[in-house]
Amino acid sequence: MAIRELEESDYGKGFLGILSQLTTLGEVPEDVFVERFRELRGSPDYRVLVAEEPERGRVVGAATLFVERKFIHACGKVGHVEDVVVDVGCRGHGVGQRLVAALLEAAREAGCYKAILDCAEQNQGFYEKCGMVRKEVQMVKYFDR
Amino acid sequence: MAIRELEESDYGKGFLGILSQLTTLGEVPEDVFVERFRELRGSPDYRVLVAEEPERGRVVGAATLFVERKFIHACGKVGHVEDVVVDVGCRGHGVGQRLVAALLEAAREAGCYKAILDCAEQNQGFYEKCGMVRKEVQMVKYFDR
Ligand SMILES: CC(C)(COP(=O)(O)OP(=O)(O)OC[C@H]1O[C@@H](n2cnc3c(N)ncnc32)[C@H](O)[C@@H]1OP(=O)(O)O)[C@@H](O)C(=O)NCCC(=O)NCCS
Ligand SMILES: CC(C)(COP(=O)(O)OP(=O)(O)OC[C@H]1O[C@@H](n2cnc3c(N)ncnc32)[C@H](O)[C@@H]1OP(=O)(O)O)[C@@H](O)C(=O)NCCC(=O)NCCS
Repeated sequence: MAIRELEESDYGKGFLGILSQLTTLGEVPEDVFVERFRELRGSPDYRVLVAEEPERGRVVGAATLFVERKFIHACGKVGHVEDVVVDVGCRGHGVGQRLVAALLEAAREAGCYKAILDCAEQNQGFYEKCGMVRKEVQMVKYFDR
Repeated sequence: MAIRELEESDYGKGFLGILSQLTTLGEVPEDVFVERFRELRGSPDYRVLVAEEPERGRVVGAATLFVERKFIHACGKVGHVEDVVVDVGCRGHGVGQRLVAALLEAAREAGCYKAILDCAEQNQGFYEKCGMVRKEVQMVKYFDR
């Protein structure tokens, strides 16, 4: 299993199918994907990683980091880990943990003083295995569009 | 009380003193502040609001929004509310709620499908007054530098 940066050609390798196992994906035609891909690739503050099964040439996992710039902590940075997901057929083999470890390391290298994420209570154990601890509570407001 | 965008001159109006009531501020000389200010002002994805007491010309509250760009939800956006704080001498007069309301509205206008934040359990009631509901749990990893 290779952990690497998302590439534009991952549209054809099942990247979005993997994300659809996380939550509502909605309509993402290739041009919309490419536009968002280039926005994120062009920013120093986003890192999108995928796990690829080299034999099949398929994406089987994904996870995103973005780095928030703050005034507090001496104008410090915080890494936000988002959208961690592993293909249902590949779970339990350490892929998720490798993705999260790679993003935590990327956050540290980017100079973040901490990395955070929000998860369902049922995934707390997984993130504890990744070396994280539970801290605050997440509040949300949904907008109807 | 005026709610407005952060300005460069707020360095001299107590902006950082307000943030120091939230957490560790550390050393933030004016040139470092200005550099970070211009980074954030130059990005379409950050909004930093302050509450100013016009009579005294002092900043008495602050809150930040940044907008994360995703692939999920049809390449949707999520608003992250960060670093909400009101001067200890001005709490309980609706300033915090006005700051959060302004940022939630900014997130909606930016096209976010939701806005989220992490807070200490003891502040859950405040964010409920702001129209938010509790959802997930926050996990954290601190880096020693
Ligand atoms: C959560 C998820 C990413 C884990 O990926 P994975 O590749 O199966 O996880 P790993 O194999 O790397 O697991 C690492 C360790 O965590 C454990 N673990 C995995 N999921 C767990 C869970 N929900 N609760 C407790 N422990 C868990 C594993 O047993 C393993 O422990 P071990 O080292 O003692 O064997 C995956 O289950 C998934 O995609 N779930 C659906 C989407 C989702 O909920 N994403 C998280 C959004 S916050
Ligand atoms: C949390 C904080 C921003 C609230 O600001 P504030 O200006 O005092 O809040 P408001 O006056 O707008 O309060 C709005 C409502 O929430 C209520 N409220 C305020 N703090 C609350 C709390 N901790 N728990 C429950 N309710 C609370 C108020 O009583 C008010 O209710 P009402 O409309 O029925 O009178 C402020 O207390 C603060 O800066 N605290 C320290 C820093 C901090 O913890 N920030 C949050 C980081 S996640």
